[in-house]
Amino acid sequence: MKPLSTGRKITVPGFSFSGISAGIKNSKDRDLALIFSNRPAVAAGVYTTNRIKAAPVKLSMKHITSRKAQAIIINSGNANACTGTSGMKDALEMNIKTAEELGISPDLVHVSSTGIIGKPLPVLKITDSLPELIRKLSPLSLNHAAAAIMTTDTFPKSSSRQITVDGKRGTIAAITKGAGMICPNMATMLCFIMTDIAIHRQALDSALKEAVNRSFNRLAIDNDMSTNDTVLALANGDLQNRPLTKRAASYENFKKALNDLTYDLAEMIARDGEGATKVIEVLVKGARTEKAAERVALSIANSMLVKTAVYGGDPNWGRLMAAIGYSGVDVNEQTIDISLNKIKLVRKGIGTARETAAARTLSRKKILFVIDLGTGQETAKALTCDLTEKYIKINAHYST
Amino acid sequence: MKPLSTGRKITVPGFSFSGISAGIKNSKDRDLALIFSNRPAVAAGVYTTNRIKAAPVKLSMKHITSRKAQAIIINSGNANACTGTSGMKDALEMNIKTAEELGISPDLVHVSSTGIIGKPLPVLKITDSLPELIRKLSPLSLNHAAAAIMTTDTFPKSSSRQITVDGKRGTIAAITKGAGMICPNMATMLCFIMTDIAIHRQALDSALKEAVNRSFNRLAIDNDMSTNDTVLALANGDLQNRPLTKRAASYENFKKALNDLTYDLAEMIARDGEGATKVIEVLVKGARTEKAAERVALSIANSMLVKTAVYGGDPNWGRLMAAIGYSGVDVNEQTIDISLNKIKLVRKGIGTARETAAARTLSRKKILFVIDLGTGQETAKALTCDLTEKYIKINAHYST
Repeated sequence: MKPLSTGRKITVPGFSFSGISAGIKNSKDRDLALIFSNRPAVAAGVYTTNRIKAAPVKLSMKHITSRKAQAIIINSGNANACTGTSGMKDALEMNIKTAEELGISPDLVHVSSTGIIGKPLPVLKITDSLPELIRKLSPLSLNHAAAAIMTTDTFPKSSSRQITVDGKRGTIAAITKGAGMICPNMATMLCFIMTDIAIHRQALDSALKEAVNRSFNRLAIDNDMSTNDTVLALANGDLQNRPLTKRAASYENFKKALNDLTYDLAEMIARDGEGATKVIEVLVKGARTEKAAERVALSIANSMLVKTAVYGGDPNWGRLMAAIGYSGVDVNEQTIDISLNKIKLVRKGIGTARETAAARTLSRKKILFVIDLGTGQETAKALTCDLTEKYIKINAHYST
Repeated sequence: MKPLSTGRKITVPGFSFSGISAGIKNSKDRDLALIFSNRPAVAAGVYTTNRIKAAPVKLSMKHITSRKAQAIIINSGNANACTGTSGMKDALEMNIKTAEELGISPDLVHVSSTGIIGKPLPVLKITDSLPELIRKLSPLSLNHAAAAIMTTDTFPKSSSRQITVDGKRGTIAAITKGAGMICPNMATMLCFIMTDIAIHRQALDSALKEAVNRSFNRLAIDNDMSTNDTVLALANGDLQNRPLTKRAASYENFKKALNDLTYDLAEMIARDGEGATKVIEVLVKGARTEKAAERVALSIANSMLVKTAVYGGDPNWGRLMAAIGYSGVDVNEQTIDISLNKIKLVRKGIGTARETAAARTLSRKKILFVIDLGTGQETAKALTCDLTEKYIKINAHYST
């Protein structure tokens, strides 16, 4: 088992964590994680819109309707996707055995899987490991859980924010995994959010949807969408504040903290994109609607030509203009400004001939494109990474 | 100037062709082409749906409304895109000077440009070369024109079909260029179709739209769409048949020949995709509608993970399932069959464990995926190529 980075430990009152090796991965790396709340928590979830959903996703979507959850068990190394009825049986088995071992109701347990598609889940390895997994639960082990959900990720991803509610410091923390949107024969972006702040189900649900829309849904690694993508949020109310509603004074702060947190995690996923050497942030301003700004930003973030140009150190704004043009948004060439790392490349649709200066800034690890469409007041950001030969190597030469 | 492949020469009665070097490309390769009909021809055009259109595209879209055309002049090496009002002036200058030199009306002349975006068109080099370009017009020089429209293409692309109309052999021939959808800082898929078969404007227009929808619009190289894409068809009636209408007996034959021809050319573009080592054909069967079949086929053809897997010799059907699932089409996992080069990989949504046999077939130059959705009777094909390290090299390290 690889050593984990130490550093400040993230804790969330009332939550404990565990991450062990159950032998699902050949590498013997951690591959089984448990998140446990000391009481049933208010729960909200956002799931992949892929029509083909992995068994655990279908099960979690069913359980989320009960609006409460107390535990999330996650395995990496196997996605339990395209596994038919036996896959569903395995997901149920994992759910029921975990509930039994924890002594709680099965509908309070969420199951999540990530890894190889189309192979039977080694469910016995998971259920046999439950006693150890539960024994190792600790408020200080969030980093173990973050490590245990990794597939092709090169580093564990976690982050936290604190806000004041009713005069008390509440915490929102999360772990996530990503790398490729679908990794080599691997599936899944997963994110699990824990907070001790008491909040009503509807308010949590609405805040979570907004946060996901502005972070993970604006993240483009390779245009592919996994069968397993899942974001779950658990609010256990340990802070004992008056539960937040959408009209509560602190709700805006809660949403802002959650937006910041998820964007931070999305940026970590972009940084860890397969083969990536740089994070690319695309800020679109001056759009008629936020949706229009988002479409333009994602069109650019999804352009293989933009991503390879950044990799090659080439401030090729013609490729951005083309991506803006085919985004489907009604744009006007003559009002478009483009800048790269604050150097204006295009003014009113015409190049400024500042490519040489701009090219020098492309050696940075974080690249910022700002596009002003000049047609309105709305903005949106998207995140991606550069596209390199290493992406091809990782995805071509991974053998099934 | 590189030598051109000889071989059977394609001729189209009443059409002559020319392709010379006007010094627009630094390489001194052919970069200026002319297609000339001995009389005004019925004309139809299909243009890029990119909102940002190059100056010559805007001009051609205006001229096509006159429904007749006699000449097409095309330069490579410069796309005259994102060049503002001076770009439009240059396109007009190219149009007017060509018309003058040919002694025909300017609205019978179409102008097309492909190459670098955002640089002023060297229009003087073009107009100065007009006398030579016209002098070299010959019915036998279609291959010169095909060579002169190339940008990053590694071979000139032309094809022809013959059909019998009113007891006489009529010809439909075409030249095209492609490589990357947008090549490195280069723009454009161009295709010019010539026929001596007399046909009414509406019938030609309708046949052309169908042919383009089933060929070039089902071709995915890198998801990017150029500002210059143009397909023009000229029918000069030299065959002196009764002009085809949509209800003519020969119209179905005409459409079939045109569909075959454009699909053949689209496959040549896929074969010449930047860095490609293989053509990939995706046939989707058993869909409820042709549109649904097309969406699934294009979703797969656009998947970077599918394209890298083919390159890596990995029959990774999980990636196909994911791409089918996120196509937006309402599919049912349990009715999906997938085969690769006639080897069944998935039956009713479950893997058949025949990856080893399938992997051996991936050394072929042409790869065929057949997906049966099991929900209806409709089919559609899409074309793409594999995605390789060389694609990244070509597009990252091309300097502006």
